[in-house]
Order: sequence, then C-alpha cells, then structure tokens
Amino acid sequence: MDCPLYKQLTSFVKTDQKELSEIIRFFEKRSIGKKEDILEMGGKCDAMYFVEKGCLYLYTVDDAGNEKTIQFAIENWWLSDVLAFRNQTRSQFGIRAALKSEVLEISYPSYQGLLANHPVMEEYFRKVYEIAFGAALMRFKFLFTHSKEDIYHHFNDNFPDFVNRVPQYLLASYLNLTPEYLSQIRKKATS
Amino acid sequence: MDCPLYKQLTSFVKTDQKELSEIIRFFEKRSIGKKEDILEMGGKCDAMYFVEKGCLYLYTVDDAGNEKTIQFAIENWWLSDVLAFRNQTRSQFGIRAALKSEVLEISYPSYQGLLANHPVMEEYFRKVYEIAFGAALMRFKFLFTHSKEDIYHHFNDNFPDFVNRVPQYLLASYLNLTPEYLSQIRKKATS
Repeated sequence: MDCPLYKQLTSFVKTDQKELSEIIRFFEKRSIGKKEDILEMGGKCDAMYFVEKGCLYLYTVDDAGNEKTIQFAIENWWLSDVLAFRNQTRSQFGIRAALKSEVLEISYPSYQGLLANHPVMEEYFRKVYEIAFGAALMRFKFLFTHSKEDIYHHFNDNFPDFVNRVPQYLLASYLNLTPEYLSQIRKKATS
Repeated sequence: MDCPLYKQLTSFVKTDQKELSEIIRFFEKRSIGKKEDILEMGGKCDAMYFVEKGCLYLYTVDDAGNEKTIQFAIENWWLSDVLAFRNQTRSQFGIRAALKSEVLEISYPSYQGLLANHPVMEEYFRKVYEIAFGAALMRFKFLFTHSKEDIYHHFNDNFPDFVNRVPQYLLASYLNLTPEYLSQIRKKATS
C-alpha cells in the first residue's frame, strides 16, 4: 500500500501487513489549508500529526508580538507540542500549515491505545524521539557555533532540499534571524 | 534498593524487583573527576550515561576555539551524543564532568541487548526521549523569545535549583552568552 507511514514503520521496526492495517486504524486523515492553524497557542494539545504531504510548523509569539518558528515537519515527520500532548496541558505553541498539507492525526486516547495494543510502536516512537532529540542537539550546535551572517549560508549549503520547501520568512525565524536581516544577507550575496 | 535508576524506572514503567535486578546488570558504575572528559570530540561514541550524582555536560568548540555548552545532565538524567551513539559514528560533541560525578554507563551492545531482552525498556526510553525532545522545544522557545539581557534573569527565576548546581561560565554558554556578557549582566544586577 502506498502510505508514507507504512513505509517508515517497516524501515524502523519488524511488523507485518496484518499489524500495519490494525495500526493505521488509530489514525485519521486530515487536509489542512495553507496558513491554516491546526492547533492554537493556549489551546488543548490533543493530537500528534504525521505529515504525508506539505509542511507544518510549530510557532510561538514573543512579548513584542513577533512570531518565532520553533520546529518544522516536512513529509514523513511528526509534529506536536510534545510536552503539552504528553501531559495533556494547554499548548505553549501553535501549529500551522506552511503549505497545503495532508496529515495523519492521532488523538491522545488513540496514542495510548496504540501503544498498549501494539508494543512494536513503543520501539518505533523510541526511535522517532531519539532521532528528534539527536537532531535538536545538532541544531543547538548549529545555532551556537555560527555567526548570524554565516548561519543562513551554512544552512543553505547543508540542507538545500529543505530550504527549497519552506517559505523564506519562516526559515529566517527558524534560524533566529529577523526577515529584514535575512533580506540584507541575501541582497549582499547576490550583489 | 537505593538506586536512582530503579526509582526512575518504577515511576516510568511497570516492572518488578526480579526484572529490575536483571536490567541493572547491563550497566557499569563509573566515577568521573571534575573537568574530566568521558567522551572526546571526534571519538567513537560507544556509551550513554545516567547521572547518579554530580553533573555532566555535552560541549562543542566553534571555529574560533570557544567551547559551547550544548546540554547538561544533572542527577537522574541521561547524556550522550545521541545521533553518534545511535549511528555508531564519530562524535560531534565531547562529554565532560562539571563536578565530580557518579554515573551508570551502558555500552552500545549492552543497550541493544537491554532493549531486546526487556521490552519494557522500549517504553522507558520512549518516555525519556519524549521528555528530552519536548524540553528541547521549550529551550528553543526560551532562546528565541528573550533578549540577551533578559535570558539569564528569566532562567535564574525559573530554574533556581538548576542554576545553583552548575558553574556559571557553563550556564552562560548554555544560554549562548559569552562569560564576559554574563559578568556584565551580573554586575549591573548587583550595582
């Protein structure tokens, strides 16, 4: 079956067609329009999302009202306000579609049911979060060891596919740059 | 038994005394001196560490030779170069003891054996990494929504116990501040 989550599951853990078709019943397909919020800041974070097509991002707003992009999820990756979902508390973040997106949504009760009924999913999510946290450590390294001027070019050189998929103003925010600063850097680079 | 890892395991997952005593055999106790490296940058990352006493930190070095603190682990938490451990590649980080420390070390083959023989450890590490990644998202939020001036005070106010346990020059680096900048802020605060 041509399902991105099936493909990832079979590459991460040992399972079979019967179990895969049981696992997929815990999810619901959902379409999200470009710039549509799927979770509002301060709302109850009652779901996790697996991106099949498009791009979601997690954001927050600082005291001056500026939006800050905290995390992206492109195809084949997960997004949620992880602690709010885990603890069933109000979200510290919003989640929005950067592009028209297709996602698989899993609610909190379904997530608990999935883990209880399919222990192989403990292994799967252990690996998902291991990679997510390992990548976060690499991102701190990236942010802490490059100057503001360098960071955009280094990111561009290292992750060209990713850079091409996400709007530039969101990428600037993800690198903790203002849109104005990004615009200056890009003007310099092309002059 | 008075073992910090036992306590955490029984609070995170359902297990029993017999299994706990089997699980603990996969670990080795190790003492590390203050400022001693337990992993060198560029070395093979062949272990994960659970801190029983003291404090470890993960660091890297920028092009100008400045050390940057990427992550701390105080009592009851884990530390490793997660991606290098997972992929058995050379480490992007070093790991050093901020204070004289007692740790439980688990090697890569033992980690694999532990997970294969005790499926409950998949659930345990899924939860450990869920919390670690969720906390990393909160740290990005913290870094992106506070000015350099505010960040130290906010951190101090929110995590006083943590601030009291780690050397100030490492904390400055963890907040992406230079030691000189931290010193200026603290002088202002006390003047």
